[in-house]
Amino acid sequence: MSGKETYYIGEQSLIFPKDVYIISSASVVGKKEGEGPLKDAFDMICDDDKFGADTWEMAESTLQKEALALAMGKAKLEPEDIRYLFAGDLLGQNMATSFGLMHYEIPLFGLYGACSTAGESLSLAAMCVGAGYAPKVAAVTSSHFASAEKQFRYPLEYANQRPVSATWTVTGSGAFILSGTKGKVRISGITTGKIVDMGIKDSMNMGAAMAPAAVDLIAQNLEDFKRTPEDYDKIVTGDLGYIGQEIIIDLLKKQKIDISGVHEDCGIKIFDKEKQGTGSGGSGCGCSAVTLSAHYLPMLEEGILKRILFVPTGALLSTVSFNEGQSVPGIAHGIVLEHVED
Amino acid sequence: MSGKETYYIGEQSLIFPKDVYIISSASVVGKKEGEGPLKDAFDMICDDDKFGADTWEMAESTLQKEALALAMGKAKLEPEDIRYLFAGDLLGQNMATSFGLMHYEIPLFGLYGACSTAGESLSLAAMCVGAGYAPKVAAVTSSHFASAEKQFRYPLEYANQRPVSATWTVTGSGAFILSGTKGKVRISGITTGKIVDMGIKDSMNMGAAMAPAAVDLIAQNLEDFKRTPEDYDKIVTGDLGYIGQEIIIDLLKKQKIDISGVHEDCGIKIFDKEKQGTGSGGSGCGCSAVTLSAHYLPMLEEGILKRILFVPTGALLSTVSFNEGQSVPGIAHGIVLEHVED
Repeated sequence: MSGKETYYIGEQSLIFPKDVYIISSASVVGKKEGEGPLKDAFDMICDDDKFGADTWEMAESTLQKEALALAMGKAKLEPEDIRYLFAGDLLGQNMATSFGLMHYEIPLFGLYGACSTAGESLSLAAMCVGAGYAPKVAAVTSSHFASAEKQFRYPLEYANQRPVSATWTVTGSGAFILSGTKGKVRISGITTGKIVDMGIKDSMNMGAAMAPAAVDLIAQNLEDFKRTPEDYDKIVTGDLGYIGQEIIIDLLKKQKIDISGVHEDCGIKIFDKEKQGTGSGGSGCGCSAVTLSAHYLPMLEEGILKRILFVPTGALLSTVSFNEGQSVPGIAHGIVLEHVED
Repeated sequence: MSGKETYYIGEQSLIFPKDVYIISSASVVGKKEGEGPLKDAFDMICDDDKFGADTWEMAESTLQKEALALAMGKAKLEPEDIRYLFAGDLLGQNMATSFGLMHYEIPLFGLYGACSTAGESLSLAAMCVGAGYAPKVAAVTSSHFASAEKQFRYPLEYANQRPVSATWTVTGSGAFILSGTKGKVRISGITTGKIVDMGIKDSMNMGAAMAPAAVDLIAQNLEDFKRTPEDYDKIVTGDLGYIGQEIIIDLLKKQKIDISGVHEDCGIKIFDKEKQGTGSGGSGCGCSAVTLSAHYLPMLEEGILKRILFVPTGALLSTVSFNEGQSVPGIAHGIVLEHVED
C-alpha cells in the first residue's frame, strides 16, 4: 500500500505512513466517578466537582487543563513540545475547551462530535502524527455532569426525575499525547463515521439514538480491515450504556456479526449501576476518554490486551434542534489500538 | 525538507508532502448579501432567507447542503467521490452542519473554531489530502444572520439597536473541494493559530476581540515562511471589519510589519457599509467562506492574484461564557493560496 502512497483502505478507513503511538495519557474525574468501579485507576479524583472554580463551565475547563498537564508531566514534556491540540467538549461553542486550554498557547483545532469527540480528536491527532506533520500532539476531551445538565436538560436545582433510559454525564477529562516515537500502544488505523439518523427523537434515550451509528461503524471497520470480531480482544463503545449495548449486539447479529463475546462499553464500566443510580450508564466526551486512559490503555501497555477497537459514539443534538422537533442523529469514530512488543 | 520527511516549519506552519489543490468551490448566500458589492459573483442568491425551511437553523442547514451540492456539481463529482467532510458552523453543537450534511452520508469531522472555522476546515482538509489520506475531500462552513442572532444576541422580533462596532452575520455557506489532482489554485501551506485572549469582554465589538489573534497569526506566518507582506498580493482576514482592520494594521506596525498596502477583509468586501447599514462589516463562518469562493478564488484561478494569505478569524464566545463574565478570546487560522501556472 505504501508503494502506491495512498493510505485509505475500504470505504471509511485509514492507515498511516508513519507509526503513531500514544506515549502518555491522563484521566481527571469528579467525586462520583471516583466512587465507581474504576476508582483506583484514575490519575486524579477531585472531591469538589467545581474544581475550585466559580462556575460549572470553568470547572470543566479546569478538568481539561489538569488532564493535559498530567499527561504532559508523565511524558516529561512542556507545552512547547506539543505542536497541535485536537480538543473539544459538549458545550455550545466548545466553551470548556477554549477557556481550559488557551493558557497553554498551543495551536488548536477545535472539534465537535458530541460524545464521539474523544474518537474524533484521536483520529485527527493520529492522522497528523502519522503524516509527519508534528513530532507530538495532544488530544483532549471533557464533559461535566453539571455543565451538561445545564446545557441540555434542566437546572440541577429543579431536581427533576430522570427516566431509566437516561445516561449520567461523566465529570471527567482525558488527555492523550501522540508521538511518532515508539511507545507501548500504537494507533494502527482509524475508521471515520458518517452521521446515521434513524429518526429517534427521545433525548433521554441517547443509547438508542447512537446505537445505529456504532453498528455501522463497527461493521464497516471489520469489512475495511477484513477482520472478524475475534480479531479484536475487545470492541469498546463510548457511552451506549445498557440499552445501547443490547441494541448494537442485536442489530449486528442481523448482519451475521456477533460481538457479544468481545463488546464492552465505557458507560457501563465507569459506574456501578445498582449502587450509584446512574440509569443506563455513563455518557459524555469524558466518559470514553477517561475510561480509555485509566482502564484500557494500561491493559494494552502490559499486553493483557493485544488489539482493541475503540468506538466513541455521539448524539448530535442541541437544545435548539430538540426544541424544534428534530431527531437525534448519531455518529461514531473508530480507533484501532494495539499493544507494541518491546 | 521532504528528505527528512517532516513538513512542519517554524513555530506554527506546515507544508505538505503532496500537492493540494482547490479544484472547485461554491457560494450560496441570502438576500442582503446578494444586494451587496459581490452580488454578481455568488453562485446562488436566495430571496427567501428561510430557504424554504421552517426554522432559521434548518435554513442554515439548507445553505450548507446547497453549497456542497453546487461545488460537487461544478467538479462533476458525486458524494461517493468525497472521502471526508471537514465542516462546522457557529451554532451550539454544530446543528446546521449535522442536519445539513448528514444526507450525503460522507464520513464527517465536525469542527468548531467560531468564524475561523472556514480556515480550520481548509487546514485540516489540506492536511488530509496532502498526506495522501484521500483523493478528494470537502470543507464546508456556514453562518446565518437570523440563527446567529437567535443564538448569541436577541430574538429578531425585539428589534433591538446595535452599536456601530457590531458586525452583521453573513447568511451564506461556502464549500470547497480539495484534491491531489492538479487544479488552478494550490494550498501551499498553512499556519495554525493559538487562542489569544486580550481580556476584551464586549461581544458587540468582535473585530477588536479577534484582531490580536490575527496579528499573531500573520506575524507568525511571515516569520515561519521567511516572507514579508509584499510576498503576498493580498493578506485577507475573515471578518475583522473596519474596526478590526485599523487595529491589526496598527498593532503589526508596532512589530515593524506594514500590511496596509496588501490587507483586505472579507467582512468589509461583502457589504456596502453606507448603503446596507451593516455596521463594522460582515462576520460569521459564512462571510470568509463565500468571499473566498466568489471573489478571491476566481482571481487566483486567473492569475490576477498569484499568492494570498487567507486568515479567517474567530471569536470564541458563547452566551454562557458571556453571561458568566468571561472575556472573548480570539483565534485565527492562515491558509496560503497560490495561482497554478498551466
